[in-house]
Amino acid sequence: MPSEHEGRPITCRAAIAWECNAPLSIEEVEVAPPKQGEVRVRITATSVCHTDAYSLSGRDGEFATPAILGHEGAGIVESVGPGVTSVAPGDHVVALYTAECRTCRMCKSNKTNLCSSVRTTQGQGLMPDGTRRFTAKRNGEAIFHYMGCSTFSEYTVIAEVSCAKITPDAPLDTICLLGCGVTTGWGAALKTAQVEKGATVAVFGLGAVGLSVIQGARYAGAQRIIAIDTNPSKFPLATKLGATETFNPKTVPEGKTLQQAIIEMTDGGVDYSFECVGNVQLMRTALECAHKGWGQSIIIGVAGAGEEIATRPFQLVTGRVWKGSAFGGVKGRTELPGLVELYKKGTLDIDSFITGTLPFAEINHAFDLLHKGDSIRTVLSFE
Amino acid sequence: MPSEHEGRPITCRAAIAWECNAPLSIEEVEVAPPKQGEVRVRITATSVCHTDAYSLSGRDGEFATPAILGHEGAGIVESVGPGVTSVAPGDHVVALYTAECRTCRMCKSNKTNLCSSVRTTQGQGLMPDGTRRFTAKRNGEAIFHYMGCSTFSEYTVIAEVSCAKITPDAPLDTICLLGCGVTTGWGAALKTAQVEKGATVAVFGLGAVGLSVIQGARYAGAQRIIAIDTNPSKFPLATKLGATETFNPKTVPEGKTLQQAIIEMTDGGVDYSFECVGNVQLMRTALECAHKGWGQSIIIGVAGAGEEIATRPFQLVTGRVWKGSAFGGVKGRTELPGLVELYKKGTLDIDSFITGTLPFAEINHAFDLLHKGDSIRTVLSFE
Repeated sequence: MPSEHEGRPITCRAAIAWECNAPLSIEEVEVAPPKQGEVRVRITATSVCHTDAYSLSGRDGEFATPAILGHEGAGIVESVGPGVTSVAPGDHVVALYTAECRTCRMCKSNKTNLCSSVRTTQGQGLMPDGTRRFTAKRNGEAIFHYMGCSTFSEYTVIAEVSCAKITPDAPLDTICLLGCGVTTGWGAALKTAQVEKGATVAVFGLGAVGLSVIQGARYAGAQRIIAIDTNPSKFPLATKLGATETFNPKTVPEGKTLQQAIIEMTDGGVDYSFECVGNVQLMRTALECAHKGWGQSIIIGVAGAGEEIATRPFQLVTGRVWKGSAFGGVKGRTELPGLVELYKKGTLDIDSFITGTLPFAEINHAFDLLHKGDSIRTVLSFE
Repeated sequence: MPSEHEGRPITCRAAIAWECNAPLSIEEVEVAPPKQGEVRVRITATSVCHTDAYSLSGRDGEFATPAILGHEGAGIVESVGPGVTSVAPGDHVVALYTAECRTCRMCKSNKTNLCSSVRTTQGQGLMPDGTRRFTAKRNGEAIFHYMGCSTFSEYTVIAEVSCAKITPDAPLDTICLLGCGVTTGWGAALKTAQVEKGATVAVFGLGAVGLSVIQGARYAGAQRIIAIDTNPSKFPLATKLGATETFNPKTVPEGKTLQQAIIEMTDGGVDYSFECVGNVQLMRTALECAHKGWGQSIIIGVAGAGEEIATRPFQLVTGRVWKGSAFGGVKGRTELPGLVELYKKGTLDIDSFITGTLPFAEINHAFDLLHKGDSIRTVLSFE
């Protein structure tokens, strides 16, 4: 059934970031109808991720204000622009910040999930045609998009290639988490690192990403999964999701490095390590605690603009491998439906990541909870 | 036929490094008979590698004098110590600085060639039992071993696990090069990187290692092989061995980086890059000219003690992989016989690497030629 607004602007609530380091402002925006190859989605649930907080902090050189943040969201297609064939009004979708066009050189390579189709404009906060669909009602100013998603709005417009269509019988207020953290960690373990049965794994940082690495490693059959965080309140959930041990870096004795401590715990180092924080020193630690000869270290966390990683080349010459992972190496349109099935079967735990739900109007409180480390994910509801 | 010296010391000529940054001294040494698990080899041919020069320069923190350098050598087993079963007097062997014991955890993992059996003592310039077999005749001083080989001596003692037995119908004065550079480059392309048909490859540094990467990449069916060196006199041989293009970094216009130049030449970067120099800045360049999404960069060169590599983590998060390779990932005792067969069939070119031969007494001249960049390998003969 076509939407009553098809082809016309919709006025709705959104959380606008007018400037960095200030609370988001909940106010009315006008959302233009989707153009060629675009889809307008009614977002029903979205969560707040550290990347939203990172951009809002001003450390992300690419982020332009005013903007509508949010990239972990799910909803129902309201209307589609010309040429859209893969989704239709009424379809349930998860918004993808890593698009999948299936026709660019990157997609066709089958070696990466880093689709290049909308990359440039997405980085600029624009739709693929270089324009914007959001206008602030208060002053008529055009508002930037964010990561190709802008899910902190009751309605948003995204590219068709950024829409993962999923089964309508999955709860949108849970599987919205597949839009970022859960998929990223799960994929990093299973697709990027390809952790194998019997492996020893170290996970640095126990947010949504690290916790999902843990469940991915457990699914792969890892024998030892060491969950590492300076906040011990994260340990019970890490254990529930599959960690066999927990470790607080603050307990490393003086005169010993964290990598030395882990190497000792593991008779020479781990087979796979994952940095899920975004700290360049910790990325070095993660590499250097990997086992000589075969240990792989996967960088997932996002470092501050301009920050660099370093190590002695001897670390690599003696067989360690340094890699990274974006969105877990997952091709969203193709693979998210499978992750939804794993969730429905109970294999992939998403429910445990939801430490609270709030009405959309309390989005700034959700940011506070994230900063305090008291939450994994707060899901915001537009209902 | 047992050697007339079996069980007794042999006095012979060797080139002793009494101190760093001084010419080697050709003089008489006494070589003790092999102990348990050891083999005494009459070296018939050895060549000079940059690693010998590096150690002699004093930049190698591990190198202790007085020592007998040399790790690219081949010869004939003179006698064996108790317990040696895999080689016998008269066998032709190549000395291995990367041992292969087949029983340690590293060997058994089948994930690495970095055997740990003799590593600690080898790094200290000692035989596995912690003692030495060389004594200077002039003053009775014990002389350190080097890289488990010390091939700059007419006779040397090495561990059985450091002996690659090869067919007696291969010329020792050629296949001695399999002891280091040729095997390292060939293996880095085929075993570490696993270059595949149609790939684009960049090779930084056109010494024996880089040139062997080139022939390995050609053997793998790479479509573009870009040979990079600041010394254009290396280009003809690189082309002969399979380079499809040559590039001199000195021709990069001001305001552009070397990585940018290569990314432009290759429509986004190379599939595989190899650093064969030992320059940490060039290691960064090699990584950053690898293609987003799948490019791999392999560090082979040995950097100065304490030097570090650095890059932005974004380079890895967007899909580049940073690796290293030691002795090309090759397990010497198991795989060198196969490389000798490839040489005999004409598949693996070693002859082209030999830019000259000299009598052993002129070893210091061979070092001079290496420093000047005028030679790839000078083979020294004891005949």
